[in-house]
Amino acid sequence: MKRVLVATGGGDCPGLNAVIRAIVKRAQQEPDWEVIGSIESFNGILREPTEIRVLDERAVAGIHVQGGTIIGSTNKGGPFAWPIKNKDGSWDFVDRSDEMIRKLQYLGVDAVISIGGDGSQKISQALFEKGLNIIGVPKTIDNDLSATDFTFGFQTAVQIATEAVDKLVTTAASHNRVLVLEVMGRFAGWIALHAAIGGGAEVCLIPEIPYDLNKVLERLKARYSKGKGNAIVVIAEGAKPKDGSIVFAESKEVGYSNLRLGGVAHKLTEELKMAGFEADMRETVLGHLQRGGIPTAYDRILATQFGVKAFEMVLEQRFGQMVAYRHPNIVAVPLSEAVGQPNFVDPGCDLVKTAKGIGISFGD
Amino acid sequence: MKRVLVATGGGDCPGLNAVIRAIVKRAQQEPDWEVIGSIESFNGILREPTEIRVLDERAVAGIHVQGGTIIGSTNKGGPFAWPIKNKDGSWDFVDRSDEMIRKLQYLGVDAVISIGGDGSQKISQALFEKGLNIIGVPKTIDNDLSATDFTFGFQTAVQIATEAVDKLVTTAASHNRVLVLEVMGRFAGWIALHAAIGGGAEVCLIPEIPYDLNKVLERLKARYSKGKGNAIVVIAEGAKPKDGSIVFAESKEVGYSNLRLGGVAHKLTEELKMAGFEADMRETVLGHLQRGGIPTAYDRILATQFGVKAFEMVLEQRFGQMVAYRHPNIVAVPLSEAVGQPNFVDPGCDLVKTAKGIGISFGD
Amino acid sequence: MKRVLVATGGGDCPGLNAVIRAIVKRAQQEPDWEVIGSIESFNGILREPTEIRVLDERAVAGIHVQGGTIIGSTNKGGPFAWPIKNKDGSWDFVDRSDEMIRKLQYLGVDAVISIGGDGSQKISQALFEKGLNIIGVPKTIDNDLSATDFTFGFQTAVQIATEAVDKLVTTAASHNRVLVLEVMGRFAGWIALHAAIGGGAEVCLIPEIPYDLNKVLERLKARYSKGKGNAIVVIAEGAKPKDGSIVFAESKEVGYSNLRLGGVAHKLTEELKMAGFEADMRETVLGHLQRGGIPTAYDRILATQFGVKAFEMVLEQRFGQMVAYRHPNIVAVPLSEAVGQPNFVDPGCDLVKTAKGIGISFGD
Amino acid sequence: MKRVLVATGGGDCPGLNAVIRAIVKRAQQEPDWEVIGSIESFNGILREPTEIRVLDERAVAGIHVQGGTIIGSTNKGGPFAWPIKNKDGSWDFVDRSDEMIRKLQYLGVDAVISIGGDGSQKISQALFEKGLNIIGVPKTIDNDLSATDFTFGFQTAVQIATEAVDKLVTTAASHNRVLVLEVMGRFAGWIALHAAIGGGAEVCLIPEIPYDLNKVLERLKARYSKGKGNAIVVIAEGAKPKDGSIVFAESKEVGYSNLRLGGVAHKLTEELKMAGFEADMRETVLGHLQRGGIPTAYDRILATQFGVKAFEMVLEQRFGQMVAYRHPNIVAVPLSEAVGQPNFVDPGCDLVKTAKGIGISFGD
Repeated sequence: MKRVLVATGGGDCPGLNAVIRAIVKRAQQEPDWEVIGSIESFNGILREPTEIRVLDERAVAGIHVQGGTIIGSTNKGGPFAWPIKNKDGSWDFVDRSDEMIRKLQYLGVDAVISIGGDGSQKISQALFEKGLNIIGVPKTIDNDLSATDFTFGFQTAVQIATEAVDKLVTTAASHNRVLVLEVMGRFAGWIALHAAIGGGAEVCLIPEIPYDLNKVLERLKARYSKGKGNAIVVIAEGAKPKDGSIVFAESKEVGYSNLRLGGVAHKLTEELKMAGFEADMRETVLGHLQRGGIPTAYDRILATQFGVKAFEMVLEQRFGQMVAYRHPNIVAVPLSEAVGQPNFVDPGCDLVKTAKGIGISFGD
Repeated sequence: MKRVLVATGGGDCPGLNAVIRAIVKRAQQEPDWEVIGSIESFNGILREPTEIRVLDERAVAGIHVQGGTIIGSTNKGGPFAWPIKNKDGSWDFVDRSDEMIRKLQYLGVDAVISIGGDGSQKISQALFEKGLNIIGVPKTIDNDLSATDFTFGFQTAVQIATEAVDKLVTTAASHNRVLVLEVMGRFAGWIALHAAIGGGAEVCLIPEIPYDLNKVLERLKARYSKGKGNAIVVIAEGAKPKDGSIVFAESKEVGYSNLRLGGVAHKLTEELKMAGFEADMRETVLGHLQRGGIPTAYDRILATQFGVKAFEMVLEQRFGQMVAYRHPNIVAVPLSEAVGQPNFVDPGCDLVKTAKGIGISFGD
Repeated sequence: MKRVLVATGGGDCPGLNAVIRAIVKRAQQEPDWEVIGSIESFNGILREPTEIRVLDERAVAGIHVQGGTIIGSTNKGGPFAWPIKNKDGSWDFVDRSDEMIRKLQYLGVDAVISIGGDGSQKISQALFEKGLNIIGVPKTIDNDLSATDFTFGFQTAVQIATEAVDKLVTTAASHNRVLVLEVMGRFAGWIALHAAIGGGAEVCLIPEIPYDLNKVLERLKARYSKGKGNAIVVIAEGAKPKDGSIVFAESKEVGYSNLRLGGVAHKLTEELKMAGFEADMRETVLGHLQRGGIPTAYDRILATQFGVKAFEMVLEQRFGQMVAYRHPNIVAVPLSEAVGQPNFVDPGCDLVKTAKGIGISFGD
Repeated sequence: MKRVLVATGGGDCPGLNAVIRAIVKRAQQEPDWEVIGSIESFNGILREPTEIRVLDERAVAGIHVQGGTIIGSTNKGGPFAWPIKNKDGSWDFVDRSDEMIRKLQYLGVDAVISIGGDGSQKISQALFEKGLNIIGVPKTIDNDLSATDFTFGFQTAVQIATEAVDKLVTTAASHNRVLVLEVMGRFAGWIALHAAIGGGAEVCLIPEIPYDLNKVLERLKARYSKGKGNAIVVIAEGAKPKDGSIVFAESKEVGYSNLRLGGVAHKLTEELKMAGFEADMRETVLGHLQRGGIPTAYDRILATQFGVKAFEMVLEQRFGQMVAYRHPNIVAVPLSEAVGQPNFVDPGCDLVKTAKGIGISFGD
């Protein structure tokens, strides 16, 4: 009997369970393979007692419809930075990667499939360099990885953000309000860009196109001059003004900026008011609503393709590689070429042109 | 030709358009009636030039599916407190009610249907006392009016809040998080109570049942002791601790408390952390998402019943009365008995017992 | 340790799992009770080996969001008509009720909660008369039981049917079509009536109001004469013409009429064409889509109330009674008074008046 | 002032309105262009009096969220086959294309954008050959056009079909049923293939892979032998058995086969029963529910890209060409190369392999 271990790491993303189910269903077609899952990314392997779960047909029945991941996930711990609390309350982080690889051998694990974001895949690459038979499956709800055309979870987030715009539009129109909707996107504005086009916003502010507050005001005032006292502004949480007046210091702890949820929406609202814009403004913050719930059909299908491919890469022993979607194919790319290669919105790309073509202002 | 004027006042509420459509469709069955709408509550009548819109079959086709109101709404102005800006920038508020009643006569308006919340119905009652032929249709998304068993919009808000809990549950479970969801309800906790039962929360905090932070901690820790590091807390925006440590001063301007959107969720999260609760906590704030969008079938039907009844009350000249739902009938109640009679959650009611019966803690 | 056994019988209905979860959650608050489930109604008890499932917190976690029932259901078998195949291929039905009651004693079952429709509750009543400690929970997606104001599942079916009308309306309008939608309702037209009002149909045909084909034609032609070549007709599967030209023979096997799914929609379409109506007509049949999927918040809450009440009735030993919703309370009613008391649409009721008030024709 | 005329032809498809809105919004950015729409494809031009509608900002506000098309559509008539009724009741079809081109000149139309399926684009090509300045925008809900990677409407249909599977799955599981779902796809099985993967079906039958009834039975019986008495079968309306026992004669009138809605699902159900499969089987037919309603975000965005591109092709005078999506770009392709080039499911393609990888049987 051969054994493949699956782990899911990082923030939540609709489609994780569909990947797990596809791996298990594909593995069942091989007579001599079984699938196990490590609970909460690799932490399940590192804990005593070990926390693993057998993933058979029964365990994965119907899970492709559910958000979350049945084997848990976390941003903390992992083989290269295991936290140990000192007597004085401070934390040390120790490298337990060699120990983990030995433990996997002891558990009879022949291959590992690691589903996770860029941080997780850096760990995959490092483990591969230490000799582990590992395959990566990319996961980023922000769609900000250049190695793959699309990642699962993104379309679900776009759909949820677009439906939020739909809900706000009628209120804005009947109550003469400017409604500011903050969506995910600390470094990449894909969700904001898609939701602005899909939902019908007047203004879309994203990290890749620093905005000029006066340009935003102009666009909103132009709308007012037409007798329409309402507008929808979609703003990515990492949007920033051209003049650099907002600086988000990188936080060392989580690798993210120090933005509070809703911070950028609130800031913009305040700025517009200070600039003399008299409209009745309200802000809405989607937050975790974008990461949860039932994946769209699109994401379930893409996630299923990723899962089937990942297991087949195990069979083909294509270790050190990552699944990717290069339209219209599902392919394998070396982890070494994929990690750390972000995919930002190019201000001159077709989709931005489309957005400008229907009158959306980026404040540039 | 006889003429009925419709106005919609106050905050947004799914079902407003369904009421308008039902009034128009019912009026069409009478040979000699037409319906007109005043834009942005009664302000359309008071403005120069007058802003009214003829509401015929074409104007209302398909609008019952849409959020918002096709004749606009507002919280500002109105016949008894029309704002006038002084030279020094300050505001005076003048009574233009007599002028408005004359203008309605001049426009040939035989009756008025005013769709709005408690504030609007107080205005309806005052106008009725001045001799205006007016009928009220209650509108409160919080379901906090004792004169009627249910109001339209409420079930839609509950459905949206419940679906938000659904989205958060899988993330909470797979990422071991306590997720705090703030829903509407400054004075009445109906939406929070329903969403906590419907979605499956562990804790529900509402204005009517001041909470003891220690009791909330106990409930969450009890769950942790069972090995579940996750929970959903649904909190109404007006929830407050027993010890009175949070006091919301009433704001004179809007008649509402001075809560910032997300304030109570953020406050609770901070308090729990300070009390030593180590869980990974995140807050989500629904805000205006609860007020907008497509009404549920339930709300469309109730709103349609209200609209048909309101017009029939015009035919029957039952002025000074308000439509109400007294299960299973749609009835008329005197405005004088209906206004200012709030409907709060009784801590001993069946629904709270049901909630406690499935283990939901109110922190009491 | 005391033991309550739960069984679900009859057709699918959104909310069954929410009832089961509420029973289990409420029982957990009593120190000495456990809940078990019989698989596929009472058949699990009658089979060898017995098929029962322990229903603990883990078993019911999150199930209130799911359609179906985790303990299975069926229309076949049961204690009073257990099928036995003869050598010649024919079937005999034997009474195994005494045997079942003995088996329940042997299993240490102190009380039984039977969730099911009118047929199931007749069995409950018969078992109660034989001395079994049994409580009934009503289940009918058609809302056709007079003992309770509403049953869970109904609002979900109405929501699904209304959303189907929403989807058809835009196609009908842009393609000048008459679209006929068949919804559930063999004997009671509640779903059709609600969906016609909620969705905005022109014609609604239900079993309780036999239709005159000429009146239906008149309504559709009147719409044509206004230049609108489109309409939505919502038809309950048991709708029938006044002239008695369609007669549905009762089928002995399932207790239902011999209608084929889609039969009534197809029949009406043909009839209208034969009557010379030249419109482009298409039919759509919802079928099982109305019975499945995620319950609305309303149904989850009502089902939770039913479940909590049912278990409390066990504690109070109110056997031979059934849970019912008598607005605004959840009450207990004797099974003997509840079974066989259908709830049909009264042609003169307020809701039919509302429907006619917005111009919906019933063909009468 | 220059003028572009827009027409929408053929069956309904979510996203049509988003294309129209994008054309209008993009045209507004050019100082000297206006957009008009011909009602019900080109028939609005051919009728007396002419039926056209000015498409300005107000006309298209918010329409991208709606199904259908605000300028109407039809499968009948058109410039090359205008129907004329003879005295004996028979029909003749006359070529009015020259007359239509003259009428467009008379109306001051500088360019035409024709949004429609393969039949419509054949007409576009023929009109282009006669000298008309025409641009095509492809529309096929079945995604069966090889010139473009995806068409708008398809993802919405897939989402609706997948959600239907979701609704059926819980009923099938709790009631031990085999549920057969018929989805669109007379010649191409893309919707069935996607919904089977996205929803989680056991069997998927499509026109491109003729099925062997015995293989279908084997798959279902294999599931039964595992103790699971339930399954979902997704079947495209054009699916057919290998042995040729079902032959769909082509209908001359509409260019489609003579299938009755639900025919193939009913046929398969009967066949399985006759083959001795004893399961409780039910069929469900989606029909027009797949064509209507609110487009998904994906389809709104793709439709918006098509609309912006189409108008820019007018500006660039790229007549005789059609908009297409060649990932990741929106491009122009000659109509002459695009029409009549269908896109069928290749039985050896990656997506079929994915489906087989998770155990879906195609009966081959």
